[in-house]
Amino acid sequence: MNHSYAIVGSGALGGLYGGMLANAGAEVHFLLHSDYDHVRTHGLKVESQWGDFDLPRVNAYNDPRAMPPCDVTIVAIKTTLNDKLSELLPGPTRGGGNVLVLQNGLGIEADSIAVVGEDRVLSGCCFLCSNKVGPGHIRHLDNGRIAFGEGRQFGQITPRVRSILADFRSAGIEIEAEPNMGIVRWKKLLWNIPFNSLSVILDASTEEMMRCEATVELARSIITEVHDAAGRCGFPIKSKAIETTIEVTKKMVPYDSSMRLDYLAGRPLEIDAILKAPIAAARQAGSSMPRTEVLAHQLAFLAARRCGPGIAPASASREHAPRSADRST
Amino acid sequence: MNHSYAIVGSGALGGLYGGMLANAGAEVHFLLHSDYDHVRTHGLKVESQWGDFDLPRVNAYNDPRAMPPCDVTIVAIKTTLNDKLSELLPGPTRGGGNVLVLQNGLGIEADSIAVVGEDRVLSGCCFLCSNKVGPGHIRHLDNGRIAFGEGRQFGQITPRVRSILADFRSAGIEIEAEPNMGIVRWKKLLWNIPFNSLSVILDASTEEMMRCEATVELARSIITEVHDAAGRCGFPIKSKAIETTIEVTKKMVPYDSSMRLDYLAGRPLEIDAILKAPIAAARQAGSSMPRTEVLAHQLAFLAARRCGPGIAPASASREHAPRSADRST
Repeated sequence: MNHSYAIVGSGALGGLYGGMLANAGAEVHFLLHSDYDHVRTHGLKVESQWGDFDLPRVNAYNDPRAMPPCDVTIVAIKTTLNDKLSELLPGPTRGGGNVLVLQNGLGIEADSIAVVGEDRVLSGCCFLCSNKVGPGHIRHLDNGRIAFGEGRQFGQITPRVRSILADFRSAGIEIEAEPNMGIVRWKKLLWNIPFNSLSVILDASTEEMMRCEATVELARSIITEVHDAAGRCGFPIKSKAIETTIEVTKKMVPYDSSMRLDYLAGRPLEIDAILKAPIAAARQAGSSMPRTEVLAHQLAFLAARRCGPGIAPASASREHAPRSADRST
Repeated sequence: MNHSYAIVGSGALGGLYGGMLANAGAEVHFLLHSDYDHVRTHGLKVESQWGDFDLPRVNAYNDPRAMPPCDVTIVAIKTTLNDKLSELLPGPTRGGGNVLVLQNGLGIEADSIAVVGEDRVLSGCCFLCSNKVGPGHIRHLDNGRIAFGEGRQFGQITPRVRSILADFRSAGIEIEAEPNMGIVRWKKLLWNIPFNSLSVILDASTEEMMRCEATVELARSIITEVHDAAGRCGFPIKSKAIETTIEVTKKMVPYDSSMRLDYLAGRPLEIDAILKAPIAAARQAGSSMPRTEVLAHQLAFLAARRCGPGIAPASASREHAPRSADRST
């Protein structure tokens, strides 16, 4: 192994990749929050399609200031917690190491850049289906590929990217180095914008949505809007990707998006990173994303109603007994 | 009274206006469906802000062929039942009388025109809040103004419009003759498209939506889209109407839209008349309504899931206990 690693956010994503690196012999330091006591005593348990394993003892921390400086700090928290990065990153990065941001959305590197500077930040997207099913217990269900590269300098696969790639591959992780992470991020948005959003707004799994012609057509129109916005922003994606995104989703196992799980669990939704940042980028490029704007506002209402004290649901459930009232207008 | 009237669809709307005409001495014939037995025996009961009254005996029919020819036949069924008009209209209109269509949406006169011809069809919009609270029992809660005029010949208040107007006014109904029903219909769509749709999609009352800045902004963007489409279609509405629609809705009593009540009661939704027809009209005028398209598709999915055998809700309720699952992507 070439590097030592800090995992900031050791959940479904950080627990899996950090666990695999540690299991392959890398020096890995895990920052934990709610699971700290459990993991310090019992370690990590990973069930994965790439092979199950237990790590009875891991380097567990609940205070980032107690972490040693690491060569690579992996940011694996939700973007909704990014305001904590100014406390979380200085500890493990104080030796001058790099930061690899593995988060959803657009422009999400900015919060890490604000802490450690642009030169030290790498950017990655994970195409992963993984659950945290209990304290320190990760279940990796499907996919898992990471695409990563330089955060801002598009066009080159640098030596540091190649050397991190080697570590991940040694650990059995499917990973690719990408010369243009901007395109990769927009490609992931082709899926995340329609399916994360609609799964919350319509309270539906991808399977349900793909069984109904209206939602297939809706998804196609949103994906097309994202595709066009990407092009306007300087990240051209082949138009074939529109139908591919639909076809891949039709063939997926019934799947709850991360945003739907966040919604169901009462966590904040990544509306800013996944919807508002692309809308703002498109606007700056002289374009607009009206469909995505509708989704962003609908999500903001649903999130506010669920979390806010003032906005109670109009009815307890979407499933109602028929009422006899018959009102006009 | 100048005319005899047939009421096709004697519910919250037809029962109120037909009842008021009958109560003022007009000859009125009521076509009923589920309430026929009750109304034939017990008549109609109307509670209205314009005055309560009982009609212990009314001319009730459950077969349109048994109805006498009338001077004016009022179409007060939901547009989702318009495929029945070819059976419902010939009876009461066989003497050559006129048809006054009091339905929501755009282009909704076409189905009546197909039965009796363009020359005999008048068009009206009701700004009404009325419930059917039991068999033959109407509760008129708020508003109630009718705006009506010639269906297709814009620009003139014809003698037949004036003479129907006189009957309605004699009966105490608030009514205006309009020279351009196209503008009136689009003005009503300024409200119906955002608030009917969002009340179903977000499972929310107008009050809840107006308490949240995200939904106010969303409503404003949809209203602006409808306003612009109306102009492109040749029906210019003053831009002041956009903010007026928002302000009126903010001041409304907590209100369930007709579409939300239809959804809750398991009835079909007026997606074609209220959303798809304006989208098609805008397209024909070389414009597009992307926000309205998103709403139409979302509604189609929700309606199909509720009614269809194949599409079950992903979860029984929007209100869930927090889950510990924490999944990525």
